[in-house]
Amino acid sequence: MLTSVSKVLKTEILKSEDAKWIQLMLTTYRDPLGKERTWEYAERQTRPQSSSVDAVGIVAILDLPTGPEIVLQKQFRPPVNTVCIEIPAGLVDEGETPEQAAIRELKEETGYIGEISISTSIMLNDPGFCNTNLKMIHMTVDMNNPKNQNPQPELEENEFIEVFTLPLKSLFAQCEIWEREGFGLDARVATLAEGIELARKWSL
Amino acid sequence: MLTSVSKVLKTEILKSEDAKWIQLMLTTYRDPLGKERTWEYAERQTRPQSSSVDAVGIVAILDLPTGPEIVLQKQFRPPVNTVCIEIPAGLVDEGETPEQAAIRELKEETGYIGEISISTSIMLNDPGFCNTNLKMIHMTVDMNNPKNQNPQPELEENEFIEVFTLPLKSLFAQCEIWEREGFGLDARVATLAEGIELARKWSL
Repeated sequence: MLTSVSKVLKTEILKSEDAKWIQLMLTTYRDPLGKERTWEYAERQTRPQSSSVDAVGIVAILDLPTGPEIVLQKQFRPPVNTVCIEIPAGLVDEGETPEQAAIRELKEETGYIGEISISTSIMLNDPGFCNTNLKMIHMTVDMNNPKNQNPQPELEENEFIEVFTLPLKSLFAQCEIWEREGFGLDARVATLAEGIELARKWSL
Repeated sequence: MLTSVSKVLKTEILKSEDAKWIQLMLTTYRDPLGKERTWEYAERQTRPQSSSVDAVGIVAILDLPTGPEIVLQKQFRPPVNTVCIEIPAGLVDEGETPEQAAIRELKEETGYIGEISISTSIMLNDPGFCNTNLKMIHMTVDMNNPKNQNPQPELEENEFIEVFTLPLKSLFAQCEIWEREGFGLDARVATLAEGIELARKWSL
């Protein structure tokens, strides 16, 4: 597997003035009792002026005769020095809607052409720690479309992504197996799996 | 509502040397083709030495005759200047297991005494942007336990949390309503809701 040779070589503190993509912020706020307090957090510097959304996550489902399968990928992530299991995702470009970004990113990262079924609410990735947000776009991939028979990703020269699919009903059990195998689990994958498991357990 | 008077007053860039809780990092890594590249990310400085997990999120379910309800909370979050809808959560303390942290945090933040049903895999909140991670602990709250009849949170003096419960089956539809009302949605709440909806849509 190509991604497995990736490795962090060194990590050092980055000074505020040298940071390009990210920044540390100190905010002064009024608490519910009127008292002024401060809070430290990390801010993404790339949100387009035209958008209130940093990024999209794509829940792409292949509607197969054997049951629905979710499109997933493996990618090395330097901040955690691990190959992560993720859904397709990407930053929203200037002038683009999240929905346009989702169609573009799915095509670029996986080769699949999807049709949007739901564009969900904006979610905050870790609102005590940073300001990053994400909109999840659900898409169905029509396997009768000849273009989806042999999908060809169009990756950039610094992108190394392995695409695969998994039966949706196996997602929860598979998360535990991936963890045992040493993969990192992106929160979107793990939490979707837990939601599916909750629905099953409580017969929702 | 107490949390609604909270407000960001000013935000400024925080220098690396003044940061206490958080830090900017620059990592040098080897990509899958052997080329050295760099990546900027944010790091939480509070992970205990005794743990590989920063925090726990708690999926606490009240098993009621009318159906399962999930314990949720409203809390103002300075990084996004919004009152957020979240599950109970908190940082793991030194020497504590994630499971112990979950039992403690649920009690402190909501007053409920829960029993762990599942301790899930570690998830990475946003592995392209930061190193923070979280373990989701599922708990059932026995409503026949007299201590759960009139739960009393034990909040710290800088914590302002409003606790409420919602039928699990309404979670997905309610996320859209909260967004329209101006609340921020924590990723764990929104993604659990989407997982439940996926299970329903595809009859998993």
